[in-house]
Amino acid sequence: MATKHILIVPGDGIGQEVTAVGKKVLDAIAAKFGHTFTYDETLIGHVAIEATGVPLPDESLEKMKKSDAVLFGAVGHPKYDNDPSAKVRPEQGLLKMRKELGLYANLRPIKLFDELLGASSIKPEILKGADILFFRELTGDIYFGEKGRKNNGDTAYDIAEYSRYEVERIARKAFDAARTRGKKLCSVDKANVIETSRLWREVVQKVALEYPDIEVEHQFVDAAAMLLIKDPRRFDVVVTANLFGDILTDEASQIAGSMGMLASASIGDGTGVYEPIHGSAHDITGKGVANPLASVLSAALLLDISFGLKAESELVISAVDKVLKAGFRTRDIADAATPADKILGTEAMGAAVLKYL
Amino acid sequence: MATKHILIVPGDGIGQEVTAVGKKVLDAIAAKFGHTFTYDETLIGHVAIEATGVPLPDESLEKMKKSDAVLFGAVGHPKYDNDPSAKVRPEQGLLKMRKELGLYANLRPIKLFDELLGASSIKPEILKGADILFFRELTGDIYFGEKGRKNNGDTAYDIAEYSRYEVERIARKAFDAARTRGKKLCSVDKANVIETSRLWREVVQKVALEYPDIEVEHQFVDAAAMLLIKDPRRFDVVVTANLFGDILTDEASQIAGSMGMLASASIGDGTGVYEPIHGSAHDITGKGVANPLASVLSAALLLDISFGLKAESELVISAVDKVLKAGFRTRDIADAATPADKILGTEAMGAAVLKYL
Ligand SMILES: CC(C)[C@H](C(=O)O)[C@@H](O)C(=O)O
Ligand SMILES: CC(C)[C@H](C(=O)O)[C@@H](O)C(=O)O
Repeated sequence: MATKHILIVPGDGIGQEVTAVGKKVLDAIAAKFGHTFTYDETLIGHVAIEATGVPLPDESLEKMKKSDAVLFGAVGHPKYDNDPSAKVRPEQGLLKMRKELGLYANLRPIKLFDELLGASSIKPEILKGADILFFRELTGDIYFGEKGRKNNGDTAYDIAEYSRYEVERIARKAFDAARTRGKKLCSVDKANVIETSRLWREVVQKVALEYPDIEVEHQFVDAAAMLLIKDPRRFDVVVTANLFGDILTDEASQIAGSMGMLASASIGDGTGVYEPIHGSAHDITGKGVANPLASVLSAALLLDISFGLKAESELVISAVDKVLKAGFRTRDIADAATPADKILGTEAMGAAVLKYL
Repeated sequence: MATKHILIVPGDGIGQEVTAVGKKVLDAIAAKFGHTFTYDETLIGHVAIEATGVPLPDESLEKMKKSDAVLFGAVGHPKYDNDPSAKVRPEQGLLKMRKELGLYANLRPIKLFDELLGASSIKPEILKGADILFFRELTGDIYFGEKGRKNNGDTAYDIAEYSRYEVERIARKAFDAARTRGKKLCSVDKANVIETSRLWREVVQKVALEYPDIEVEHQFVDAAAMLLIKDPRRFDVVVTANLFGDILTDEASQIAGSMGMLASASIGDGTGVYEPIHGSAHDITGKGVANPLASVLSAALLLDISFGLKAESELVISAVDKVLKAGFRTRDIADAATPADKILGTEAMGAAVLKYL
């Protein structure tokens, strides 16, 4: 029987609606298995800026550090997107959180629930059986290097940077995971052009020597972006830098039918953070139609990775599977064949998952 | 009746085989329309390193500058890919050529020939009618900024840089093209995180004011990578930075069924360069199976853009269309339904195109 303190960080847009469902699932698991989960909630992103002037208040960060795990929503607001000169931005809160918590490894499992085989733009025969685990580096690269303007603002620059130990630690995590899976690892870089990628490849080649049982390949990011669609089944574990990981995992979401189904775990030195890979989606915020399953599956990852509660985690995943098998869909994963009464809103989808728990 | 001097730059791997076919097509067009095309050939990439020690000899560059257009193959060699410490690399030749010729705009039309609707991993009903024209910036970004090592080689860095005028000139080209097409433009960046993207968005927003008839949207690169697969028909003209363009256009090749079908035009201040978007493909080099159609379609772009020979260009495209309609395929675009005697090698496919010219 575990006693754990979970921090809910809904953030912006649909973050609020989907983490509410994720939390209910955690609650139900605690009740069912006799665990004691306590909760707190805190601000980040646009809502934090509105309330305090900064995207990640010290208080939020302190609470994160003190909790056993964080269930995270999303950050972002169109207001800033369309104003390139904004100095304070919701995303800075997310990036600061990743840096301050040392969340250097972002795990993004791309796995298709059989029932959603038809929901993807990609042909079912290409997809069937695809199962990829991405390791995206999360605290380095062009995201965190110095950036700014010169020549009176007429020239902008961003510095991408990687150090050997940063590549090493994420490579090890990826190789370790490959050992428990299909024993294949693909490292993605752009070593034919950029220096950080050459360091990346050098280090991955070196770490690979410790894992002679793992079949390793290196792909350039452009080729990888193509191969993910052409033949997703050729991939098992993929490890890549922050920016490439951002792009490739969003692209790979189409393998799983919808971004609304994909969860991620950010882990590192301390508290782990669990969040959907979808964003704040202001176009559907407040309408009660957001797909909460990515948050539910984030809760499953949280139970497994941060708490070591494997059976509990699997129960959550199988509840999602059953809901889909029963034909229930949110709008984003419905198709022409879905009867209207099976298309559920956010809360109803949450209730359906709870029913199968 | 035009008199033009064309430089053939096969480069590495299958570059040799496919440009040979492209040249034959240019020859046939000259004969048919009474133009006088003269040719020369020169080295770049791995073959240039082997012959002269450098990836772009001065003589090659001089010849490029003096010619009316360049028909280009590909550069690259696995030898360097697997050796991150190599100081001299084939790709440096390509990058230097782009910089020295001022080829700041890389046009990559993604258009599906109807006959290849089945060859893609993406469902035909998602693809049908997709027609995207990418403008990839080609002489800036992380490709050309300072790069190197510090901390005894333990830290690598790359500087991404963009100046206002660089974004402006490619944006104008893209907006102009949108005017002749679907009147929609999507600019892709990562303005929520990087400064070069914020400058990019700022400038595109400004240029947009001069084009009130064009519908403009801005997408983050991660979202764009996802939307390209989810709903390719929503795009008309896409304009983006060098690195994002590299990734997204390779990804988008899957919309056209195969990389082997995609041509590109690099244009700027002087001589235009026309090349397939596929690479040197050493795994199939010398086997006579490479798809030459991307080189043939590059020749079509050359006729149109550098020489203003629209009718000639369209004849080439329609010949490719007829070859496909007649059921001929190279291996990469064949499927289970293609009869063995319709699967052609590089030369035979070239001969088939010539027959329909
Ligand atoms: C919101 C944005 C800063 C973030 C990123 O680019 O990392 C998001 O796209 C993600 O993938 O978590
Ligand atoms: C070979 C490589 C340097 C090049 C690039 O990244 O620009 C290629 O991928 C391309 O797209 O032309």
